[in-house]
Amino acid sequence: MLSERQETILQIVRENSPITGQHIADRLHVTRAALRSDLAILTMLGLIDARPKLGYFFTGNKEKDLLSRVITDIRVSTCLSQPVIVGEHTSAYDAIIAMFTEDVGTVFVGNENMLLGVVSRKDLLKTAMGNNDLQSLPVRMVMTPVSKLIYVEGDDKALFAAQRMIEYEIDCLPVVRVLPSTEGKKKDLQIIGRISKTNITRLFVDCGMGRRA
Amino acid sequence: MLSERQETILQIVRENSPITGQHIADRLHVTRAALRSDLAILTMLGLIDARPKLGYFFTGNKEKDLLSRVITDIRVSTCLSQPVIVGEHTSAYDAIIAMFTEDVGTVFVGNENMLLGVVSRKDLLKTAMGNNDLQSLPVRMVMTPVSKLIYVEGDDKALFAAQRMIEYEIDCLPVVRVLPSTEGKKKDLQIIGRISKTNITRLFVDCGMGRRA
Repeated sequence: MLSERQETILQIVRENSPITGQHIADRLHVTRAALRSDLAILTMLGLIDARPKLGYFFTGNKEKDLLSRVITDIRVSTCLSQPVIVGEHTSAYDAIIAMFTEDVGTVFVGNENMLLGVVSRKDLLKTAMGNNDLQSLPVRMVMTPVSKLIYVEGDDKALFAAQRMIEYEIDCLPVVRVLPSTEGKKKDLQIIGRISKTNITRLFVDCGMGRRA
Repeated sequence: MLSERQETILQIVRENSPITGQHIADRLHVTRAALRSDLAILTMLGLIDARPKLGYFFTGNKEKDLLSRVITDIRVSTCLSQPVIVGEHTSAYDAIIAMFTEDVGTVFVGNENMLLGVVSRKDLLKTAMGNNDLQSLPVRMVMTPVSKLIYVEGDDKALFAAQRMIEYEIDCLPVVRVLPSTEGKKKDLQIIGRISKTNITRLFVDCGMGRRA
């Protein structure tokens, strides 16, 4: 995206920070005026920075940083979905029904004020394969309990949520508010939403369509 | 991201294209030289364009277009995964086993040279719930047949694939090469990979980390 001269200026600044505009011009055998636009562009892109009396500094930013800033600014709270919650005494069968009725791939177990676990389509398919009586099997027997859960908070970056989903190979994370526990040591997780690879895919489309810039 | 003066210049150009640099300077009560950097930045960002003897035009681009260009440049062929394929005579049971063994949410039915259908975790969970004998039920009885399939080609944009997944509520699409059919009217779809919401989530992370710019 940068012109050849802008690249050259960037390299000069990188190797000689701080350097005055006059010194850059001397190296390129041009006038200072001729450099004004290029220096303004490099400064605006955040690639170099000017300090009075000292000259130009290399910021260490890369051009691509500018492009990723749109993505890194997005918070989970701005792109989450409504959670689907079933009680802890629900059967595995009814959890699957909830999954189909609400058309989600992941169901939370507990209530709005306390997340107890998470159950996914994959967990339930495995359970269904195991010749279990789904109607009498409580969903809490097949859920991932809260002690082993990966979750995010509304203030976390969507990028962080996406990284966790990739790292832990999970399709959907609970979005919670962490509360001081009502009964001693443990913390309570209040469910405020869910964020899935579907939400991230939608964000990707939004960013690609320029709707998030 | 633009300064107040750059926004003002952009508005003047938008409302008066084509307009010379001198006329813009007159409206702002500044010298042409004072505008040079701002005009260079707006031109570099593709927001305005200069034509000799005529002056500056408004391009109709928006600032955010620049930011989305990184995303819109990504092609499916650069971010797909290996397909998992089972033969059409495979049982639903063995398709589920393949799904767990390969740790994927979607399995293709057919062979490398001909895609016959697609079966998802959701399809198989529904089948498992239906009291079917999974071992004797052929996977082709529960797959989405090729006539109703949504697919993409390697040359398609990843953004297009993501849009289709959102629009049709599908987690994973086959990536195919469309071949002239071997038997008359129909076209054959040669399987070259798969692209899922996981791949898009990974792309989102890559773009956010500046690894795709």
